Amino acid sequence: MSRPEISRPRIVEVRERVLKQNDLLARELRSQFRLAGTRVISMVSSPGAGKTSLLERTLTILGPLRRVAALVGDLATENDANRLQRSGVPVKQITTGTVCHLDASMVSAALADWDLDSLDVLFIENVGNLVCPSSYDLGEDLRVVLLAATEGEDKPLKYPTIFNTADIAIITKIDLADAAEFDRNAAHRHIQAVRPGMRVFELSSKTGAGMDAWIAYLNEGRS
Amino acid sequence: MSRPEISRPRIVEVRERVLKQNDLLARELRSQFRLAGTRVISMVSSPGAGKTSLLERTLTILGPLRRVAALVGDLATENDANRLQRSGVPVKQITTGTVCHLDASMVSAALADWDLDSLDVLFIENVGNLVCPSSYDLGEDLRVVLLAATEGEDKPLKYPTIFNTADIAIITKIDLADAAEFDRNAAHRHIQAVRPGMRVFELSSKTGAGMDAWIAYLNEGRS
Repeated sequence: MSRPEISRPRIVEVRERVLKQNDLLARELRSQFRLAGTRVISMVSSPGAGKTSLLERTLTILGPLRRVAALVGDLATENDANRLQRSGVPVKQITTGTVCHLDASMVSAALADWDLDSLDVLFIENVGNLVCPSSYDLGEDLRVVLLAATEGEDKPLKYPTIFNTADIAIITKIDLADAAEFDRNAAHRHIQAVRPGMRVFELSSKTGAGMDAWIAYLNEGRS
Repeated sequence: MSRPEISRPRIVEVRERVLKQNDLLARELRSQFRLAGTRVISMVSSPGAGKTSLLERTLTILGPLRRVAALVGDLATENDANRLQRSGVPVKQITTGTVCHLDASMVSAALADWDLDSLDVLFIENVGNLVCPSSYDLGEDLRVVLLAATEGEDKPLKYPTIFNTADIAIITKIDLADAAEFDRNAAHRHIQAVRPGMRVFELSSKTGAGMDAWIAYLNEGRS
């Protein structure tokens, strides 16, 4: 079959320019966060891996103890922000339209009327996607990749870039691990194959199993 | 906070040109499929929603009865092709590198050494992603979007474009629906809100529940 040439080099060039601009703005954001003493933690995963559920439980636990807030990204709907409002902490939704990731300019715009000095920890929930968010630095201190026990153990091998750009991994929905016949050892082996030495948590936002270790880790980072 | 201008209009322009070229090639593919009498069914979903499992079971059932084959897309690994080889039908892996979707040129290249005339049905499994594949026509007759019961009921509202570009929806992993507290009615309501009248199947590739209706549907399309 014939194949018309598709102008890939052109796209790569434009994409590199955008990424460079994003990196510059992300660097600016990072220094603002540092100056304000705000620790910024972003979350990436497939759609439905449980970012919002984990965030809801985390905000509810941390909310009374520290000054926390969250930005949540989605193509459409304010559903996540509405869910997270229940935790009582400041939450803002970023809707991206057709864009499959957050970028530094979206984060910057969302923070324009927030006083960073009054925040200890800011969570940023990215759009559910295992590809697009990899390349966009948001100025965060820590990037967390979530992998649901119901998704299968092979995701780190199939989406190595996103696991590589993340700092820690969390295996979510472990209450469903047995029912889903999740192969825990294979999952850990695949994560380590892609990102040797990566710290991995296992938890269930529904039952609360494993939440203590995750919260303790967040409090460690406090210093 | 200051926001450097990011050259979005430029990207849109390049993207439109690529899409236009893709549409032209997809149209060419579609007429080749029609001429050869090959029905082409593509599958899109989140990572880990069960495309490969459903395909494996479907190929195993259809393989002895009809001339079927499959193309499977992933950023990395030949895992899916290896799994599907077990069904005994011709399978080819397309690895996209960092690209979050298949396009018509990848499909065309993968088919270059296959004889379409010898195929009744060709399945194309897209990269696991609820955003990027929406805009790329692959010349398929039928686009199927999968939604796992473990992913939550809100995905159609959060990713309306991909549900809109699909012809039918399949709710997978229904064996885990109770354990995941999946709200079946809400899922159906959200699908219909985004795509009124959309036909929806529910099944489990693991237990086989609901497979009969899906296979019967595929056989209907035979005429």
